[in-house]
Amino acid sequence: MKKDMPYKTYLAEAEMPHAWLNIKADLPSKPAPLLNPGTNEPLNVDELAQVFSYELAKQELDSDTRLIPIPDEIADFYLMYRPTPLVRAYCLEKALDTPARIFYKYEGVNTSGSHKLNSAIVQAYYAKQQGLKGLTTETGAGQWGTALAMAAAYMELDLKVFMVKCSAEQKPYRKIVMETYGADVYLSPSRETKAGQKMLEDDPDCSGSLGTAISEAVEYALQNEGYRYSLGSVLDQVLLHQSIIGLETEAALNKLGVTPDVIIGCAGGGSNLGGLIAPFIKGKVDQTSKTKIIAVEPESCPSLTKGEFRYDFCDLAKITPLAMMYTLGHDFIPAPGHAGGLRFHGMSPIISKLYHDGYLDEARAISQHHAFESAVYFAKHEGILPAPESAHAIAIAIDEAKACKESGEEKNIVFGLTGNGSFDLSAYDQFRKGMLS
Amino acid sequence: MKKDMPYKTYLAEAEMPHAWLNIKADLPSKPAPLLNPGTNEPLNVDELAQVFSYELAKQELDSDTRLIPIPDEIADFYLMYRPTPLVRAYCLEKALDTPARIFYKYEGVNTSGSHKLNSAIVQAYYAKQQGLKGLTTETGAGQWGTALAMAAAYMELDLKVFMVKCSAEQKPYRKIVMETYGADVYLSPSRETKAGQKMLEDDPDCSGSLGTAISEAVEYALQNEGYRYSLGSVLDQVLLHQSIIGLETEAALNKLGVTPDVIIGCAGGGSNLGGLIAPFIKGKVDQTSKTKIIAVEPESCPSLTKGEFRYDFCDLAKITPLAMMYTLGHDFIPAPGHAGGLRFHGMSPIISKLYHDGYLDEARAISQHHAFESAVYFAKHEGILPAPESAHAIAIAIDEAKACKESGEEKNIVFGLTGNGSFDLSAYDQFRKGMLS
Repeated sequence: MKKDMPYKTYLAEAEMPHAWLNIKADLPSKPAPLLNPGTNEPLNVDELAQVFSYELAKQELDSDTRLIPIPDEIADFYLMYRPTPLVRAYCLEKALDTPARIFYKYEGVNTSGSHKLNSAIVQAYYAKQQGLKGLTTETGAGQWGTALAMAAAYMELDLKVFMVKCSAEQKPYRKIVMETYGADVYLSPSRETKAGQKMLEDDPDCSGSLGTAISEAVEYALQNEGYRYSLGSVLDQVLLHQSIIGLETEAALNKLGVTPDVIIGCAGGGSNLGGLIAPFIKGKVDQTSKTKIIAVEPESCPSLTKGEFRYDFCDLAKITPLAMMYTLGHDFIPAPGHAGGLRFHGMSPIISKLYHDGYLDEARAISQHHAFESAVYFAKHEGILPAPESAHAIAIAIDEAKACKESGEEKNIVFGLTGNGSFDLSAYDQFRKGMLS
Repeated sequence: MKKDMPYKTYLAEAEMPHAWLNIKADLPSKPAPLLNPGTNEPLNVDELAQVFSYELAKQELDSDTRLIPIPDEIADFYLMYRPTPLVRAYCLEKALDTPARIFYKYEGVNTSGSHKLNSAIVQAYYAKQQGLKGLTTETGAGQWGTALAMAAAYMELDLKVFMVKCSAEQKPYRKIVMETYGADVYLSPSRETKAGQKMLEDDPDCSGSLGTAISEAVEYALQNEGYRYSLGSVLDQVLLHQSIIGLETEAALNKLGVTPDVIIGCAGGGSNLGGLIAPFIKGKVDQTSKTKIIAVEPESCPSLTKGEFRYDFCDLAKITPLAMMYTLGHDFIPAPGHAGGLRFHGMSPIISKLYHDGYLDEARAISQHHAFESAVYFAKHEGILPAPESAHAIAIAIDEAKACKESGEEKNIVFGLTGNGSFDLSAYDQFRKGMLS
């Protein structure tokens, strides 16, 4: 095989980013603020700090500081599993017989299996700095809960995870990983909170929902001294932490002398996509960059392609703040046959703003079949079985590479491979048996 | 944290080994040959080539060629997931407060989750070169079957995996990965072979054993035109392919200017240990090296520490060749409560010879409790949940680092982290609940 550059590019440790990049600082028009659901007024730091640790509340509301330094202890933790490789997909290119160059940033190497660890460790760190006792969170597909369990164990914090009951039953291994790392995992709805108790009174066999689990996790944090709530996506602070993905990607591409023509990311809550594209927005604002940015979402939860851009709640029970975002409505529930973790009814306010203002060029919604078919093709040729979420980005990367074969264009296609599929095997089994809707 | 070298050392692609290293060439006294179980005569290439592809049969019997070139197509495949990192375990050292420097070579990054892929791709390659239709194999814990499924898919070969029935029931995800990669997985005993049929006639509810699965896989290969049998450990050819682990480790240590004082590997069939220590044997033979080599095995299957060095069969049904090795007897069956994949009754003939002749300095047998306790400690501090097999090496590495704390010695401790534990979570669950024997 002819190779004009390495298969994998790793930054040297001295080349690693020393600060996160805040996309909002690069935008001429800032995203609309989060609103207090009681008063409809913009939330301030003190209000947010009742739910999140103080430093995270400050980060959430900061629209002006472009570079926020990464504390040394977090930088040390990052070095345990970062830099992640930027991989040139030579074998996939050969199989597709495309003139395009395909690159992917692979975030699935760590034990939690996804990019979620990039923010989990930060949220645990600031909680520890503040002298808190512990954190609470919810988890559905389980990537976030696993990541936060690892981070909490490292920082010696208590962790209460409210896991959607039907997810826990579908993914028993996820629960075991969290417990192995010392987290207490409650199947939601649980008897630990009033919200959970009420759900169980109404329906003792209730299989749970992400909305209920969020309500339980927030309630637990508010009702128990020394606890704060953690969230793995959607929030501006999470996109800030995830900018490490994009910064490493940009630095690696620069080392290779490659300018991306297309950047593709899957989008559920927006944490991966926002992190991946963070350093590439300034060029779009300045109009110095011609890079095309594509978000990929599932047809079953098409917030960008079918949602409205308006204020909405982040949860079903309306206890979270109102966010200005593309939304399918806070009471939208994706079809139950859906396998991936891209099930959030809304989209990160930053991603929503970028899409609304045209800096995010395009959103595409694809079928599960298209995603899984592409995932299996990728697995056979590139040796990585991807998470179903990541498969959405793979599908469009392959579509773009096929279009290059038609047109003869030698485009540089970059996509985010957010995680591995080791805990999603029942979905692959259903796909193989033709049972995925 | 003070750092005098990088966390992770990756070889550049130009620094990657171009040839495998054949330990046997470095030994003044060669291991005794495999014997034909019918004649008790040494097996020749043509006899072996009825079971293995021709090139592998040649490799199996080659005791003299020190360096065997890696074909380009295999080198390309290796580059998809190699080089693997040599990691300096700074966080573990800090937690242990030890003056020792701890390094591990991490082979668990690829989708199969272990080092087994290093030989699987070679066995698939030579089968393809020979124009064969497919391969057969058995799998217990599932690492080998998964690796061979990935390799067979890449080489577009048919694959029949005979998976021990009770293992398939304990590890359903392993079976799904293999099937996703296109392998046919038969629960053993199966109706596909005479050996399986006989077992089922005797006991329709038979839960299977590795011995039976081997018999089925070998029978299928012998009875079906265009098929050959593949084995993931024990054989000299497998240790040859696994030398890529040790060669990369040696090159990375050289880059860092580090001479290992202790090298530690877990040992079941011997494929990982043999690969890891391959380049370090010559110095032991020449007496130019003071590096101490330690093999770690489970108390429940202590072939090196409690076995006899003699000729024995590799399987229960006595259809495989006789090998000169440390053995607990071919009819030895480890206690059923045992969780890891280190369940083979014998030990690789090369490892056995090294141990017998004193080049492998020490073997230690440890309890499951010791292994899992060390695994969880490692997971919390180093961010990687290890495979139970690898946990055996971790336990002794930690023991050695603690001894350095007592003595004040700044030893360089290197161990092989053969795989991740993503498919071994029921064992972790049992450990946490105090249910592991």
